[in-house]
Amino acid sequence: MPAALPLTQPDAALAACCSPVTAGIVSDEAATTLARMFKALGDPTRVKLLSLIAASAGGEACVCDLTDPAGLSQPTISHHMKVLADAGLITREQRGKWAYFSLAPQVLGSLAGALTPTAG
Amino acid sequence: MPAALPLTQPDAALAACCSPVTAGIVSDEAATTLARMFKALGDPTRVKLLSLIAASAGGEACVCDLTDPAGLSQPTISHHMKVLADAGLITREQRGKWAYFSLAPQVLGSLAGALTPTAG
Repeated sequence: MPAALPLTQPDAALAACCSPVTAGIVSDEAATTLARMFKALGDPTRVKLLSLIAASAGGEACVCDLTDPAGLSQPTISHHMKVLADAGLITREQRGKWAYFSLAPQVLGSLAGALTPTAG
Repeated sequence: MPAALPLTQPDAALAACCSPVTAGIVSDEAATTLARMFKALGDPTRVKLLSLIAASAGGEACVCDLTDPAGLSQPTISHHMKVLADAGLITREQRGKWAYFSLAPQVLGSLAGALTPTAG
């Protein structure tokens, strides 16, 4: 059974635009926004880092927490964190020497919603 | 409130692996599979084409249906269709001269599930 795909503007707070459209052709602007987020996720290291943040105590992690489980250097992890943060998928909070990263559940939820097939 | 992210193996049929894990660290293999799918979506043209297929009558479209709304040549669309099909996001059915493409709702649903935040 074919299904319609609600490829919607993923995050009103980011894009200041558009109610969800549950099945329709996305605008060029929405396609660009969505593709930017998907592209940030299109790297196995970043998928893994996202899951490591999700699994961390309190749902947040600093780069210092991630070097061991990821097996990567701090500069490498910082680079990937910047890509994820620039795409709006994680948030960053400076606390003393370290920045702590958390998932952005609303953005991730909206992105998931854009992929969720609906009855066509 | 931080949320845990069920970055799970997205499609058992594709990967022959793993029950969903609702919050945990993804394996390297699962991260690679997920990243490959996200990478295929990391292009505005492919996001748009996916939504055009979803919005097509019967939930399927041939390349010939997509040239006008996408404003692209048939070879360009065929290239993008191949990337989406190779990632498992759409399926292809040859009918006479033309191949018809449909969304793969289970794969898309699983990918959405991998992004859906759960209470941490």
